[in-house]
Amino acid sequence: MEAGFSLALRDSTVGIFGLGLMGGSLAMRLKGHCRTLIGFDSHLPTLELALSKNIIDHAEAVFPSPQMGEGLGVRVDLLILAAPVPSIINILQQLPALMPYPCIVLDLGSTKQNIVQAMSALPERFDPIGGHPICGKEKLGLENADPNLYQDAPFVTTPLERTTQRAKFAVTQLISTIGARLIEMTAPDHDRIIASTSHLPFLLSSALAHSTPQEFSPLIGPGFRSASRLAGTPSHMMIGILQSNRENILNAIQNFHNSLDEIESALQNENDAQLELLFNQSRAAYQSLTKN
Amino acid sequence: MEAGFSLALRDSTVGIFGLGLMGGSLAMRLKGHCRTLIGFDSHLPTLELALSKNIIDHAEAVFPSPQMGEGLGVRVDLLILAAPVPSIINILQQLPALMPYPCIVLDLGSTKQNIVQAMSALPERFDPIGGHPICGKEKLGLENADPNLYQDAPFVTTPLERTTQRAKFAVTQLISTIGARLIEMTAPDHDRIIASTSHLPFLLSSALAHSTPQEFSPLIGPGFRSASRLAGTPSHMMIGILQSNRENILNAIQNFHNSLDEIESALQNENDAQLELLFNQSRAAYQSLTKN
Repeated sequence: MEAGFSLALRDSTVGIFGLGLMGGSLAMRLKGHCRTLIGFDSHLPTLELALSKNIIDHAEAVFPSPQMGEGLGVRVDLLILAAPVPSIINILQQLPALMPYPCIVLDLGSTKQNIVQAMSALPERFDPIGGHPICGKEKLGLENADPNLYQDAPFVTTPLERTTQRAKFAVTQLISTIGARLIEMTAPDHDRIIASTSHLPFLLSSALAHSTPQEFSPLIGPGFRSASRLAGTPSHMMIGILQSNRENILNAIQNFHNSLDEIESALQNENDAQLELLFNQSRAAYQSLTKN
Repeated sequence: MEAGFSLALRDSTVGIFGLGLMGGSLAMRLKGHCRTLIGFDSHLPTLELALSKNIIDHAEAVFPSPQMGEGLGVRVDLLILAAPVPSIINILQQLPALMPYPCIVLDLGSTKQNIVQAMSALPERFDPIGGHPICGKEKLGLENADPNLYQDAPFVTTPLERTTQRAKFAVTQLISTIGARLIEMTAPDHDRIIASTSHLPFLLSSALAHSTPQEFSPLIGPGFRSASRLAGTPSHMMIGILQSNRENILNAIQNFHNSLDEIESALQNENDAQLELLFNQSRAAYQSLTKN
């Protein structure tokens, strides 16, 4: 780690832990904007693909616990954890043993309270900050990575009390370099909001696909495709997210039930004036929520 | 109307009643593939726009009931009703007074039982057939029309008992010309299926937008956009559709409730194995339903 207050991204060694859709897309966009870009992954073919596509400068194989623990071979200024939520927490727990050097630690996990809590247990040499870029797609993996994935996406950061200005400055440069929009907030606020804007839509898409008989397939149009798209997300990604945000998600489901019940009861009672009012409110809400 | 059993689309005069998103997109794609293309609309600026963009060969102003009734000025072989469901039913009721000539009548309405019923009351000179192209977008109007809107879209036809082979043949040519995929079924089957694959997704998108606080807007990402997109559909379009398919839609909502309740209860009980099972089933259902 360089001495001094500020850390210029272009002079930094950046490590990305996990070269899936999120980490791989980040690497693609970041390549050439930092001194050295190192990819850490436990899946050797992924590292080979990343090297062959020149997405990273250097590859380091890592192995999940309990084999993990030999130390990460190289020193980085900024380590970015791009893995599912439970893996991020697992890595954070092992990081003190793995990495003897000081470094800034940023994660890209979809929930923040559990992760920030795990970050708060890191030894003092680490300078941790929570992060969540709000982008992605239902097809995961390095083979679906896209250097423009982060363009114009909201990128939430949830600093800890101990997070230094130096870490914030490094992360601000990173977010600006990949074309995303920085939004700083607390981890509890993030988790409450994201339950409504991300986790609930996944559950609705999933329940919609689940409740639709297969024989209806010939009449599937763009509306159904759009409303059910998130149901294509691999479940192993979602389980960890949902585990770490259960209460907020249950609240978001309850709010959704209230709205759907209003619509259902207006439909049941043939109250078309009320239906129209509700749809107009929903349309205005949709337009305002998605205007950026 | 030409004599003889079959009617070649390229030798036909086709009238499109309603030059909004659906009718306008159809006209764009059909232009040049029939002898004459006539646009009927009550909105004069729409007719002027259609003429100035060379989307139709000839424009005829029509006026909604009760002023309507002077007769449609020109004779057509195939009349396509591209209007919201209640307007289609209204036009069908007035058609005997408006059009003294025989012609094939196809509609593009989103529900079929009410429309096919109204069609069955037409005098014998009309040769009616129900239709529903399953495509569209949440932004309506001729200004959003797109000649590729119908490409690869399912196009359901619901013939009546009285529908002739001649009408079916003409509609088959039309569907093939615009690049859509013909699916013939009964009106009750159509309405039951489309309640699940189209009307339910609209209601879910609408309830999702309705239940999301405006201050959550900064954290809206592509998942929310996709799941809520249909909430942008103008309500006046949807009310007529829902009115004409209430029972089927209430059943589809009930099936959705069952699936969401299963997910909610697994989440509540921290039964992650059950959650994973449900998500895997949903993902497989999504992939199979949307594979075409």
